[in-house]
Amino acid sequence: MIEGVLLDLSGVLYVGDGPLAGAHEAIRRLIDAGVPMRFVTNTTRSPRAAILNKLARMRFSVSDETLFTAPQAAAAYVEKSGLHPYLLIHPDLRGEFRAHPPEVWDAVLIGDAGAEFTYGNLNAAFRLVFDGMPLLAMGYNKYFKEADGHSLDIGPFVAALEFAAGTRAKVLGKPAAEFFEAAAASLGCKPEHAVMIGDDAEADVDGAIDAGLQGLLVRTGKYRKGDEDRIDPGAITVADIVAAVEWILTNRA
Amino acid sequence: MIEGVLLDLSGVLYVGDGPLAGAHEAIRRLIDAGVPMRFVTNTTRSPRAAILNKLARMRFSVSDETLFTAPQAAAAYVEKSGLHPYLLIHPDLRGEFRAHPPEVWDAVLIGDAGAEFTYGNLNAAFRLVFDGMPLLAMGYNKYFKEADGHSLDIGPFVAALEFAAGTRAKVLGKPAAEFFEAAAASLGCKPEHAVMIGDDAEADVDGAIDAGLQGLLVRTGKYRKGDEDRIDPGAITVADIVAAVEWILTNRA
Repeated sequence: MIEGVLLDLSGVLYVGDGPLAGAHEAIRRLIDAGVPMRFVTNTTRSPRAAILNKLARMRFSVSDETLFTAPQAAAAYVEKSGLHPYLLIHPDLRGEFRAHPPEVWDAVLIGDAGAEFTYGNLNAAFRLVFDGMPLLAMGYNKYFKEADGHSLDIGPFVAALEFAAGTRAKVLGKPAAEFFEAAAASLGCKPEHAVMIGDDAEADVDGAIDAGLQGLLVRTGKYRKGDEDRIDPGAITVADIVAAVEWILTNRA
Repeated sequence: MIEGVLLDLSGVLYVGDGPLAGAHEAIRRLIDAGVPMRFVTNTTRSPRAAILNKLARMRFSVSDETLFTAPQAAAAYVEKSGLHPYLLIHPDLRGEFRAHPPEVWDAVLIGDAGAEFTYGNLNAAFRLVFDGMPLLAMGYNKYFKEADGHSLDIGPFVAALEFAAGTRAKVLGKPAAEFFEAAAASLGCKPEHAVMIGDDAEADVDGAIDAGLQGLLVRTGKYRKGDEDRIDPGAITVADIVAAVEWILTNRA
């Protein structure tokens, strides 16, 4: 019994700058059926406004209050905890976080820094974590899909720091249960009546199921043959967003 | 009953460019006692000649045939296996490996590339391994000790690629059993009669013990309080190379 839907963006609605076939119509069907939706993304290379602009450019009408991003969750956590992290994040994201001078650093916050993942920056982060500071990660995704192939996402760099320093990161975006719970709560339904649609086997599908939601894997975006064999057996796997919406309308309350 | 000794270099004999206190005299005692020695290093930022020169500059007389390096083991493996790897290695090491054009790449070989660990280079390596090519690693060390602190070694970058691509690397330097076995064999003694002295809990001590040698951890170099609690309980832990040699001379055949 489905009462609300969480949707990943890249790989579900579009790849690169191109909307996936049938995505617009699928979203329209959910709207027409009155199914509440939230959009949840771990993208940490673009500021919030750029994500909303990109969606608008591709004619997806996603409003500010229905978009849940990992940087937003990270900023809220940093604020609540009163931490002053060293930031290893993408230059485009710097406007969403307050920079602190080295003498007050008491944590490390890592996003998908892209080309900022230099040896020097990673080593600086390592030394702080090795000295005992907590490591906060906006995500743990292994890779994402670009127009020319799969590319390293934040997860491998977090794993590298965890391995070197002998510690575990606190993940603030997907697959953190808190992140899914917050998005599901805003749908006004219990977690078990919400379904997460995503192309990332671990971050989207296993993460949602671990948080008590239902999980739906699409075979688009970063999906690779065999992904469905290494996720929770309770997950549903379908071809794409069109089939996902069909499944939801069949299984709704 | 000890018949031969393997010694790590950095952190055991010296740190940075400075010999550790008593190191020269300790090595002299082993020579005078007729204990055969081999020097085994995972350093993959310097060519073989530079390592020998550095040792000579610090007045350690290490001959070419007693030095076993991870790049040497890697070059031998690549030669034997007939592979044509993409090289993610330190610029100073390029002279020790043949470069191949992209169209014949059939493996990825990774050393401690230092500043060459850029996002672009790591992503290039990831894509090849993700497509199914084997990942060969010259080591798996977590960090090394520099004059100004601990710094990321090769291991975290190997772990990052392993995690992203869902694979495991074949390690060719320490802690690979083949590497220890080859060095021990050249001492002319059985593995169980050889002892490895090192400052790296995993690569040196646990690795040696897993290969059937004895393992001796020194509290110099990269050693950190508590390292002795997370290694094989059969390992011996002593203050430094001076105490290590004392232990060896007491326990020799």
